[in-house]
Amino acid sequence: MGSIGLWLIGGRGSVATTATTGLLAMQARVVQPTGCVSALPQFACAGLADWDSIAVGGHDIAEVPLRKRAELLAEAGVIPHRVLDAVGDGLADVESELRPGYHPATHAGSQAGAARRLAEDLRAFRQRRGLDEVVVINVASTEAAFPRLPGHETLEALEEAIAEPGRTVLPPSSVAAYAAFQAGCSFVDFTPSLGARVPALYELAVRRGLPYAGADGKTGETLLRSTLAPMFTTRALTVRSWAGTNLLGGGDGQTLADAERASSKLSSKERGLVALLGGEVTAPLHIDNVPHLGEQKIAWDHMSFEGFLGARMSLQFTWTGYDSALAAPLVLDLARFTAAASAAGQRGPLPSLAFFFKDPVGSDEHRLAEQFQLLVEWAGDL
Amino acid sequence: MGSIGLWLIGGRGSVATTATTGLLAMQARVVQPTGCVSALPQFACAGLADWDSIAVGGHDIAEVPLRKRAELLAEAGVIPHRVLDAVGDGLADVESELRPGYHPATHAGSQAGAARRLAEDLRAFRQRRGLDEVVVINVASTEAAFPRLPGHETLEALEEAIAEPGRTVLPPSSVAAYAAFQAGCSFVDFTPSLGARVPALYELAVRRGLPYAGADGKTGETLLRSTLAPMFTTRALTVRSWAGTNLLGGGDGQTLADAERASSKLSSKERGLVALLGGEVTAPLHIDNVPHLGEQKIAWDHMSFEGFLGARMSLQFTWTGYDSALAAPLVLDLARFTAAASAAGQRGPLPSLAFFFKDPVGSDEHRLAEQFQLLVEWAGDL
Amino acid sequence: MGSIGLWLIGGRGSVATTATTGLLAMQARVVQPTGCVSALPQFACAGLADWDSIAVGGHDIAEVPLRKRAELLAEAGVIPHRVLDAVGDGLADVESELRPGYHPATHAGSQAGAARRLAEDLRAFRQRRGLDEVVVINVASTEAAFPRLPGHETLEALEEAIAEPGRTVLPPSSVAAYAAFQAGCSFVDFTPSLGARVPALYELAVRRGLPYAGADGKTGETLLRSTLAPMFTTRALTVRSWAGTNLLGGGDGQTLADAERASSKLSSKERGLVALLGGEVTAPLHIDNVPHLGEQKIAWDHMSFEGFLGARMSLQFTWTGYDSALAAPLVLDLARFTAAASAAGQRGPLPSLAFFFKDPVGSDEHRLAEQFQLLVEWAGDL
Amino acid sequence: MGSIGLWLIGGRGSVATTATTGLLAMQARVVQPTGCVSALPQFACAGLADWDSIAVGGHDIAEVPLRKRAELLAEAGVIPHRVLDAVGDGLADVESELRPGYHPATHAGSQAGAARRLAEDLRAFRQRRGLDEVVVINVASTEAAFPRLPGHETLEALEEAIAEPGRTVLPPSSVAAYAAFQAGCSFVDFTPSLGARVPALYELAVRRGLPYAGADGKTGETLLRSTLAPMFTTRALTVRSWAGTNLLGGGDGQTLADAERASSKLSSKERGLVALLGGEVTAPLHIDNVPHLGEQKIAWDHMSFEGFLGARMSLQFTWTGYDSALAAPLVLDLARFTAAASAAGQRGPLPSLAFFFKDPVGSDEHRLAEQFQLLVEWAGDL
Repeated sequence: MGSIGLWLIGGRGSVATTATTGLLAMQARVVQPTGCVSALPQFACAGLADWDSIAVGGHDIAEVPLRKRAELLAEAGVIPHRVLDAVGDGLADVESELRPGYHPATHAGSQAGAARRLAEDLRAFRQRRGLDEVVVINVASTEAAFPRLPGHETLEALEEAIAEPGRTVLPPSSVAAYAAFQAGCSFVDFTPSLGARVPALYELAVRRGLPYAGADGKTGETLLRSTLAPMFTTRALTVRSWAGTNLLGGGDGQTLADAERASSKLSSKERGLVALLGGEVTAPLHIDNVPHLGEQKIAWDHMSFEGFLGARMSLQFTWTGYDSALAAPLVLDLARFTAAASAAGQRGPLPSLAFFFKDPVGSDEHRLAEQFQLLVEWAGDL
Repeated sequence: MGSIGLWLIGGRGSVATTATTGLLAMQARVVQPTGCVSALPQFACAGLADWDSIAVGGHDIAEVPLRKRAELLAEAGVIPHRVLDAVGDGLADVESELRPGYHPATHAGSQAGAARRLAEDLRAFRQRRGLDEVVVINVASTEAAFPRLPGHETLEALEEAIAEPGRTVLPPSSVAAYAAFQAGCSFVDFTPSLGARVPALYELAVRRGLPYAGADGKTGETLLRSTLAPMFTTRALTVRSWAGTNLLGGGDGQTLADAERASSKLSSKERGLVALLGGEVTAPLHIDNVPHLGEQKIAWDHMSFEGFLGARMSLQFTWTGYDSALAAPLVLDLARFTAAASAAGQRGPLPSLAFFFKDPVGSDEHRLAEQFQLLVEWAGDL
Repeated sequence: MGSIGLWLIGGRGSVATTATTGLLAMQARVVQPTGCVSALPQFACAGLADWDSIAVGGHDIAEVPLRKRAELLAEAGVIPHRVLDAVGDGLADVESELRPGYHPATHAGSQAGAARRLAEDLRAFRQRRGLDEVVVINVASTEAAFPRLPGHETLEALEEAIAEPGRTVLPPSSVAAYAAFQAGCSFVDFTPSLGARVPALYELAVRRGLPYAGADGKTGETLLRSTLAPMFTTRALTVRSWAGTNLLGGGDGQTLADAERASSKLSSKERGLVALLGGEVTAPLHIDNVPHLGEQKIAWDHMSFEGFLGARMSLQFTWTGYDSALAAPLVLDLARFTAAASAAGQRGPLPSLAFFFKDPVGSDEHRLAEQFQLLVEWAGDL
Repeated sequence: MGSIGLWLIGGRGSVATTATTGLLAMQARVVQPTGCVSALPQFACAGLADWDSIAVGGHDIAEVPLRKRAELLAEAGVIPHRVLDAVGDGLADVESELRPGYHPATHAGSQAGAARRLAEDLRAFRQRRGLDEVVVINVASTEAAFPRLPGHETLEALEEAIAEPGRTVLPPSSVAAYAAFQAGCSFVDFTPSLGARVPALYELAVRRGLPYAGADGKTGETLLRSTLAPMFTTRALTVRSWAGTNLLGGGDGQTLADAERASSKLSSKERGLVALLGGEVTAPLHIDNVPHLGEQKIAWDHMSFEGFLGARMSLQFTWTGYDSALAAPLVLDLARFTAAASAAGQRGPLPSLAFFFKDPVGSDEHRLAEQFQLLVEWAGDL
């Protein structure tokens, strides 16, 4: 396919900066696409956009220059210094495509007005860069859980509600999804925020013939859980407890130390575990903010399980990763896959992208190996 | 299907004793089939033999009473005391079906003569118990690697060679496989020993219309490796090192502390890892004998891997299990599946049972989830 | 010294049952004093009471027979079956020395009245058994934090307050301490409950010439923390975070799943860490109830620290223990040491016993090695 | 005291480069002395040399520029880029003090001749820099174990033997120690190589009135072992097994992958463990070369221990550190302490420095806390 645009909500954040820098580095031929699922041989014939034909832009409420963020990530060990040196011009070019994001606290008019502005930015980006498809991906900070309101039920109700000045009907992630669909762009929720998961937005996506995917990128503990849980179930071993502790530094650690925001993360994790194990399990789960870890993320999980004749056994793992380095390539993958789905005329939720998410829209499949097979088959049919 | 026999080579060992006691406990309705794959709903329609219609016998060179072994396993925490109380009569019944095993050091005549005696025991067991199928499963101590000899190449060459008195052409595991086939029984290698993996024995099995499976039951570290390695490959993460340390007590620890015997175990583990990761990886692997652990087995694996932009990340796990409790239910599963394959007329290696093995005969598939799907599909076709 | 009595508050609980069974087993010569600090050669000349001259009794609000509790602990793997067989008569004898405990919910009159009854039980025990010293040790469930009341400040105020019928001035642990002192017994808090740590009780103990010790037996995570923290400080390595997760089954897990009760535990743990590291450290700490673990207790701690040139490094440990098996020998040690202190005329808090406690009364020393040296020197002077 | 010199055998290696860079960074006031034991308040009054009055030089058989090595360590994450920028001039200055090392493979004459050359370098360094004391510290690659020869027994025999051209009587580490003593310098073995531990060299050191210390810096697994083992013994818990696996990248990994060189490391580790636990323990120990780890070093230790009533419990830890960042500050500490000892007229082995070593000369004390107390007391008396 032709040129595509990747528009990042939270375009100056760690994940966005890493994804942007990495894409530029691949375009500059200084790194390999390690960690990019879409670069596997299984997808060679899926007609995905070339790395070279992807342009990046985005919204962000922060104003720190992209270059500065990239330097901080280099100090934190996520971006090699030699890569930074190679992508200077590219970063300046993307910087020119970043626009002020939307946040209710700093916005005066109606949410409809905000969405119009966002959509206008998207249309201008597409036109300026001559893009065939634009995929909007939300990688902003996780929002606190947002209540379900009557205005969410139908598109008509929604548009009426958001037209009222000063009223907050949708969280920022959903305003972004609304704007994306209005501008003819597909949408991906990489966070557990509400995003497109609102009946009215489903209606809008389908009406406009646009696909969307989400939610909550699976990059660490849950990736392992969706890998290990099927081992227990196919071996008929009964998992009796699955305890988890996550230590996070960086902005993510700070965000999730806020109990309200953490709750949406925790509940998306728990849904998956119950679905995977198919029954009751004691599953205490903690997310702790540990600033000294910087961009590192550490997950310790302890599983106790019962085997033959009631034998008590256990497994524990410790995962040490860089959150941004794990998330960024998946963001690029999702841009390529979603753009291809859109080009192929798919609309509404994309359950075949469940492989990427903790809480996949339109899918009950949480087993990683099965998710991968679904993805391969689906991509083969594109 | 009707009644089947499970004949255990090493019938007085820990795995055999646990499998036997557990089967009797299921027949006595005092335990559930936790850890038995064949009891999963996916296999409900595969027409496998009922637990109640399985009879157990075996060969062993040791003479310690089965009851005594079961008591030791109860003290070691593998068999609950209440289970032991419930299966007293059953153990005595199985004890009556145990016969002296074959070992070159204590046998005077030819290996052909030894095999005739073993085969006779098998035929008598089948007749006495009125069994439709008998599956011979090797759960004896791992043997040292055995050299490939000219006599292994064809059945004719083999039979000529083993007819010579005093000559050791085959290791005990292969003599057992030969005897099994001669007696019309299918054969399963649950250890890394040579067993049926000899061209002449393949010829014999096919000629007699008998199936066989193996090798080396996948119960701990390798089970996890075949689960986790596909996570890395489908996520395009490059595993650069995979180090493993195994601490074993019990008889197994003692056997594998012997470098020669360990070597067959270690090489079957390594073949799998390379096949799973599809490339070079630094993979130091150790098996240590730690008597204090008793029946417990502890595996620590440390993986270092490379992600996006070369990010260095790691995973480590510690698995704490009871080897016998992990192996025993799989032995019962293999009896049921292999008997069903035999009844369905399948012959030669059974690649569909790869799910159970570190080094599956007739199969290059090492990914656990894919192995499970193969098993389910195959069982559905039986 | 002569005969001593060990009177356990919570005499039917897991720790008490294990301590009692173990003492009886040592008296029956069927086990060694593994885990008993007072049996080390360093204390051979301290004149501690022989194991044979210790009698056990206690208070408990539960009524389940001691024998029954011991059987449950045998099933849970804490007490070997052969030990249980050897101590039958002894358990019956201790059973005859157990009396109903005090709990405000089931008590009608004043707390002074309750204390009189408890003290009477203690005096009768001493007389009946002909004991030179009686040490009361609290091993009952951890209580919720209790507010500081004006009545706690002086003995006079306290006695006035507790004389009022229906008024709850003290938590049960402190009523037990009050009763102990009134009966001329020394007192040890093995839990984080308030116990003797009330100014009025200090006054009483000193007036009566009695020693006391506590609080909160150091049996797992904190034992390791007080061992490892000095390694970091003496090596000039800066610990930046020390995260901990505790998984507990059994009654203790249930008790501490209650946030109010856990809070007293958590704060006693935290005080120690800050004292050990001498500065700011991010230290999230969790206690989770995982019933499947039974009597097992698992602690995972992750420390991140900074070394030369700011190098980021880490240590993590997993401790897997049986809480009762860890606590019980220390309870016996404390009985011997405290009785000896009392016989030697020591009164008030015993800082030299800090080695045993998370939150030692009368001491700021949290480093394990230094605590041990203090103990050895003190015992040498007795 | 006045100015001192630190002369590093292996002056271009990772440890030496990190120590040198770190010292220069402290002199440039851009880093704190984190990880430097001698900077603790406990040693403020010991009269140690100021950081500013330490000059560095050394011998090395490699020729790679110091600056280049520092850059590689910056890429590997051991030296921050900002530090490298601050010490450019200093590195050039130290580079001017590096001289070709001695190696039997490239040396033609007698070992006496080689030693004369080395000693001459030392004398010239002292004079050129106007130093009061010079401490030679061996941080070169670990040597293979060297046999005990008759020429080692007395100084006279040694000098006769090394005078013969072409004869290899001493390993390079011992030639360095001999040269150091001849030049009036004290000597420290930071590796497990033979170094000064030869009777003839003891004789020489004492005759010249010079102190020496070693051997084998305690920076990771052994540091933890000497911390944790006393916890078990003072708690009367019986350690039954202590298994260890070390994963090393970098040059150290390569060196120790060589079984002969590893053997001297492994035996110095084992001596310590037996001394600490005071009895039999199953202690398998592995050192694996894992190049992908780079400068990182990972140690996993698993201890199984027996508690009250024979309860089986376990502890495991994983230590993740940068070897050079752990070793370098200790090298600086040793320079300061040894120079002070020399200035104070101490001669022969310095047992009070046991705190720093796996296999301390002149000391049987392996418990870390006790070693620290000895150090503090000794330094107070200087």
